[in-house]
Amino acid sequence: MIDTILNRCSIRKYTEQNIKEEDINTLLRAGFAAPCSKDSRCWHFIVLDDKEIMTSLGQNLTYAHMLEYANKAILVCAEREKAPLCWSLDCSAASENILLAAESLGIGACWTAVYPYKDREEVVRKNMPDIPLDVEILCIIPLGYPAKEKRIKEKYDISKIHRNKW
Amino acid sequence: MIDTILNRCSIRKYTEQNIKEEDINTLLRAGFAAPCSKDSRCWHFIVLDDKEIMTSLGQNLTYAHMLEYANKAILVCAEREKAPLCWSLDCSAASENILLAAESLGIGACWTAVYPYKDREEVVRKNMPDIPLDVEILCIIPLGYPAKEKRIKEKYDISKIHRNKW
Repeated sequence: MIDTILNRCSIRKYTEQNIKEEDINTLLRAGFAAPCSKDSRCWHFIVLDDKEIMTSLGQNLTYAHMLEYANKAILVCAEREKAPLCWSLDCSAASENILLAAESLGIGACWTAVYPYKDREEVVRKNMPDIPLDVEILCIIPLGYPAKEKRIKEKYDISKIHRNKW
Repeated sequence: MIDTILNRCSIRKYTEQNIKEEDINTLLRAGFAAPCSKDSRCWHFIVLDDKEIMTSLGQNLTYAHMLEYANKAILVCAEREKAPLCWSLDCSAASENILLAAESLGIGACWTAVYPYKDREEVVRKNMPDIPLDVEILCIIPLGYPAKEKRIKEKYDISKIHRNKW
């Protein structure tokens, strides 16, 4: 488990291998198991496998171009009114669970941010106009089997560890 | 790994058993391994084991009373200017990594929110006045070996799973 956490990294190049529905369901179960403020469970997950939508999103979202080549993706969003102050934190924990579950299944994944960027949100809403306006969109996670070797960054930094005071 | 994600839950009652420094370091390594926006690495971690500070925080933070009885705790905070828009998302992913690493080591943990509640932030700043004002405080995670059996909530909800549209 610790190794999975330490070995997870953003994967942006994918093979064409199909991800099984059963594995997508495991990723979603992981998302649902995240902690959330006041048990709000504000999150919703939209599984993407429609190539037309994914291509259009990939071509119009600067930092999510790999959506065009991903096998599937999960869009993480939330009913704002269920957690107006904390939806983005709850959905961040859920997103991290999805990334870790993907890593443990050998599936490459990457958090591509939508929130808090208004221009990115507009692109998503234009391509997926049925998402209600009171639903906030945190991120899209492209998914696919890795086509390239991983490059894990060492981010541990002892100068950022403090004891009882800053 | 998937089991760890699915079995994690908030633990609020602890035994007096000491948590080894080596295990605290593993939790911190997990925190540092989280994804972050634009590689900002804005996070800092303050390990708490000073009983005076922990008792005062526990007595003054409504939802974090268990800090009084926890063996140790990790306060997750961030240099705001390194990720002004995304520090709370980055720190949420780091916090979830810490919670999962704790679960995998058999250590009980719980995300007690500080952000976005101004009153809670004031309590923390009063007790830890050396935290710079440009450092944002996301949460405090009390840590201890579980004193009670876990109660895992089933949060999976098929009505929150969508396909290509809302």
